[in-house]
Amino acid sequence: MSEPVTEISENAAEPDDVYLVTADLVRQVDALIGEGRPEAARDLLADLQPADVADVFEMLPRDDRQELALVFGADLDPDVLNELDQAVIADVAAALDPQVLASAILEMDSDEAVFVLDGMDEEHRDAVLHHVPAPDRAQVLESLSFPEDSAGRLMQRDMIAVPAYWTVGQVIDYCRDTEDLPDEFYEVYVVDPRFRPVGRVPLNRLMRSRRPRLMREIMEAGSSPIQVDMDQEHVAYLFTQYRMASAPVIDGDGRLVGMITFDDVAEVIEEEAEEDMMRLSGVSGESDLFEPVLSTARSRSLWLFVNLLTAVLASAVIAIFDATLEQIIALAILMPIVASMGGNAGTQTLTVAVRALATRELTAANAARILYKEVIVGGINGVIFAISMGLIAGFWFENIGIGAVIAAAMLVNMIVAGLFGMLVPLGLSRAGIDPAVAATVFLTTITDVIGFFAFLGLAALFLI
Amino acid sequence: MSEPVTEISENAAEPDDVYLVTADLVRQVDALIGEGRPEAARDLLADLQPADVADVFEMLPRDDRQELALVFGADLDPDVLNELDQAVIADVAAALDPQVLASAILEMDSDEAVFVLDGMDEEHRDAVLHHVPAPDRAQVLESLSFPEDSAGRLMQRDMIAVPAYWTVGQVIDYCRDTEDLPDEFYEVYVVDPRFRPVGRVPLNRLMRSRRPRLMREIMEAGSSPIQVDMDQEHVAYLFTQYRMASAPVIDGDGRLVGMITFDDVAEVIEEEAEEDMMRLSGVSGESDLFEPVLSTARSRSLWLFVNLLTAVLASAVIAIFDATLEQIIALAILMPIVASMGGNAGTQTLTVAVRALATRELTAANAARILYKEVIVGGINGVIFAISMGLIAGFWFENIGIGAVIAAAMLVNMIVAGLFGMLVPLGLSRAGIDPAVAATVFLTTITDVIGFFAFLGLAALFLI
Repeated sequence: MSEPVTEISENAAEPDDVYLVTADLVRQVDALIGEGRPEAARDLLADLQPADVADVFEMLPRDDRQELALVFGADLDPDVLNELDQAVIADVAAALDPQVLASAILEMDSDEAVFVLDGMDEEHRDAVLHHVPAPDRAQVLESLSFPEDSAGRLMQRDMIAVPAYWTVGQVIDYCRDTEDLPDEFYEVYVVDPRFRPVGRVPLNRLMRSRRPRLMREIMEAGSSPIQVDMDQEHVAYLFTQYRMASAPVIDGDGRLVGMITFDDVAEVIEEEAEEDMMRLSGVSGESDLFEPVLSTARSRSLWLFVNLLTAVLASAVIAIFDATLEQIIALAILMPIVASMGGNAGTQTLTVAVRALATRELTAANAARILYKEVIVGGINGVIFAISMGLIAGFWFENIGIGAVIAAAMLVNMIVAGLFGMLVPLGLSRAGIDPAVAATVFLTTITDVIGFFAFLGLAALFLI
Repeated sequence: MSEPVTEISENAAEPDDVYLVTADLVRQVDALIGEGRPEAARDLLADLQPADVADVFEMLPRDDRQELALVFGADLDPDVLNELDQAVIADVAAALDPQVLASAILEMDSDEAVFVLDGMDEEHRDAVLHHVPAPDRAQVLESLSFPEDSAGRLMQRDMIAVPAYWTVGQVIDYCRDTEDLPDEFYEVYVVDPRFRPVGRVPLNRLMRSRRPRLMREIMEAGSSPIQVDMDQEHVAYLFTQYRMASAPVIDGDGRLVGMITFDDVAEVIEEEAEEDMMRLSGVSGESDLFEPVLSTARSRSLWLFVNLLTAVLASAVIAIFDATLEQIIALAILMPIVASMGGNAGTQTLTVAVRALATRELTAANAARILYKEVIVGGINGVIFAISMGLIAGFWFENIGIGAVIAAAMLVNMIVAGLFGMLVPLGLSRAGIDPAVAATVFLTTITDVIGFFAFLGLAALFLI
């Protein structure tokens, strides 16, 4: 609602040099493929970076994706695969030769290789792995064995680890002489003889230190490394909390096994925020934009089914008062307003609470204070909207009693909304359930039931 | 809904070494301050990093924040201020001496100084700026003059820029000999004589190059820098799309004026995702968790007011059919179900669409195809739930006609939900309005009105 003017200018002025993948470009590519000229489509993308080419692939229809991948063939930059949405990888990979894919896999950092393989159909993946040399294959298979959403999946195995007694000069010379370094790195890890990390040296500090200095003298010691089985949500928390560019990953024995970099984490941050947003709306976690129709319909139907049950429950509450409704039909006309206002006020509180739980701004330490605040907020807006709606209803049906009853019911329901908008996510969280998953359905059931019950109950008591 | 088991284990197992700011710790701090021993509370936080101390401040009641800040005094790490939520900065700053704050400001990177000053009350800010030396003050004031949410606000002014004819050795020596370098940096910028960036050299490449090599030879040329007035949303897009650790910022004349780093952008990514989530639920953009009661109530009431109007509109639709309702009271009992199912199905589509528009996975290039998909999904689930609800209603009221009417109305409403769940955000976006802002209220108005109209209208036609 706020700052609509800023919003308009923000969206209207899309700088051309920011978004290179325009709808026009995708349409041109689509048209060229439609005309049977996929080579021309490929040439149109020659100047784009891999991430942009991946976006074009995503926005094409499935058949087009395959035709375009076919004409790229062995020339497709491996990074394009890594930048694709995982639901699209299978489409593109299916058009490529397993041997081409195998050499692409070998070129990637290990986290990227795992991501791409994970997106492929199983059969195709096996065919590709068949062409990967045994030692690399073993490494990839080990990485694939880490649970999804764990640090092990995010990390790459290539990094730089040196002993504490090395000098700055030795480290620099080592880096100059070694061919197979990671594409990007931001710090060097210092390890003990058993390859356990004991410190880290950011590159800028390394560069600013004189050649004879020892790593031991310039390293930052004592930062706790990330366990390979740590949940990616915790990893993201550590990165954002301590503003890290990269971090070492250790196995169960404390040995350094890999490194996670900020760009992997940026994706997790987006994913986790998106997950909460989707779950609050009854989508099962990730955007299903690129999923096929049937799997989309199926995953969404679960939530709709739960909603159907709760809607029937709310109707059962209405049914208790059928005699009252029969006498005053105005009640049937007005009752959805009470439920709707409660639902909306509750959803506001709920969303703030779910997000704050995720970012750890809301914990057991301040829950009571914030619960109290939300109830007061509900009460203040409850009074304002109760009076407004009471007046509207009173004039509409020329009946002061109806106005008074809807006002009272609305005040009750909006306080209840503030209360349960907090209690539902807090309770779910305490029970160890993701508060985003079931919160909305719980909450609107409560506001519907209380709203209908308060309104029709008060009407039955005082108007008949 | 998906993977409830994973969720439980995920939340139940909170590793102690990840989250250092526990509810227990905050309670202890709170208790110590309550007992009049704020020094003991401060000592309890001695081992924590600034970001963690900031979290403790956030979770305390307002009075406690000030008492704790008072006892920290000049010893408070400037980074603590920078890590606070902006709504909390004023509380903490108010307890600190303006001179202490001024020297804290001088220690910070320029983007941090601006963030902290921006959070203070105006009066206090002026008092602090009074103690900042004139040249620094001018710089801070200039930074404050950049629009909120622009690249100019995110950037820091400290960075390393060198001419193209310098050698690697010269750059390294320069870094070793210069005291006032930024705390963290990941690349060096190469500028022409008019200080316009012509290339960048990541530190790892610098380190791997031999001392006599020229910057010109090893730099990456041609990446388009960020304009100082670019919206932060576009900045975040560029960083995530091209996985950048940092990027140069230029002014209107193309001169290098600053640098943005990944950690600033991580915050923007979180903010932008949160903004969409909040707006979809009728909260005005950012989480208002730490806002005072009255401003929270006021900002939320805007949306509730719009919702009240649309709820009255939906009731007006019901009122058209008052004669029908009077004859068959079962219709009053069942009608909220039709509206509710349409609203929920529509919200699923809407949320996916809003998020996909934000991440540019949904554009004019694939809108038609995805619209078609969503209508089909709505139709599939519409058929399933129409049949289910038709049977439930038929048995409940022992009336096949009522079952048939609710089934038909529900099918219509769920197809409408899929259609408008896409059309509303697409239309808002095309009109240059943030699709998250007004989408939910538009959509639920449509599904309520269509739901009531279809159900009661069909009933009026066929059941009476």
